[in-house]
Amino acid sequence: MNNNLKNFMLRAIDLSLVSVKSNGGPFGCVIVKNNQIIAEGSNEVTKSNDPTAHAEIVTIRKACIKLKNFNLEGSLMFTSCEPCPMCLSAIYWSHIDKIYYGNTRIDAAKIGFDDNFIFNELSIEPSKRKIQQQQMNQSEAKKAFQEWELKTDKIEY
Amino acid sequence: MNNNLKNFMLRAIDLSLVSVKSNGGPFGCVIVKNNQIIAEGSNEVTKSNDPTAHAEIVTIRKACIKLKNFNLEGSLMFTSCEPCPMCLSAIYWSHIDKIYYGNTRIDAAKIGFDDNFIFNELSIEPSKRKIQQQQMNQSEAKKAFQEWELKTDKIEY
Repeated sequence: MNNNLKNFMLRAIDLSLVSVKSNGGPFGCVIVKNNQIIAEGSNEVTKSNDPTAHAEIVTIRKACIKLKNFNLEGSLMFTSCEPCPMCLSAIYWSHIDKIYYGNTRIDAAKIGFDDNFIFNELSIEPSKRKIQQQQMNQSEAKKAFQEWELKTDKIEY
Repeated sequence: MNNNLKNFMLRAIDLSLVSVKSNGGPFGCVIVKNNQIIAEGSNEVTKSNDPTAHAEIVTIRKACIKLKNFNLEGSLMFTSCEPCPMCLSAIYWSHIDKIYYGNTRIDAAKIGFDDNFIFNELSIEPSKRKIQQQQMNQSEAKKAFQEWELKTDKIEY
């Protein structure tokens, strides 16, 4: 294993250990670009009352602020646990190149985190999911999409 | 259709239209508790350089700040478009009761948003995904999970 990769992962793991000690969730993350750590984060869900503040999302936000860009192409993520579906999707939206992870979603489930349950929910028919989804007012909702298509100065992502 | 539900959805749609006009993405959202709107949001990805700033996530964060709670049980979400996998997972993490939506993921794909592609990626084997995932240092990573399990004053979510 490349020593640099190992050092980046060990830093993400350090952050997960510090997080447990400071009343955060047991998860840490770093994002690397050009062989340098550009952002570090840990789980802040209960500390900041933000259910989206998983280590990976916290770190993506910090990296984007640093680079002043919503696109992290050319970056690598090192995370102490396999990303949950929310974080994995955020990684897709941010165009990170590759993910290195330590613990698995099964390890996370064993200590009470719902990652695996949510992966399963996303893979089944919407009508069978625990949280119900109901469509309404589609014709009114379409207007914003039509205006988006007609807009000539839109910034795509 | 219940008139209140319709009014909440029309407000989410209004927010999506305002967002297009003010250079945001064409998505709006409201969260309702006890028949009152407690938070409103729209897509701010390009405005705030935050790839996680989808309308639903922006609105979940605002609702949690307002309630000083990371758990939104008892709340309903009205969103102008079917949530992408990131937002749908965030809805699970925040324990929202039910989702009402206008446009579908297919409508979103037609105007250039990758929701449907990401849903597909999440449902296939990790080894077949476009963004590669590689496990390393699991034995070191486990320490934070062990410490979490032993912690007696942890706040679970």
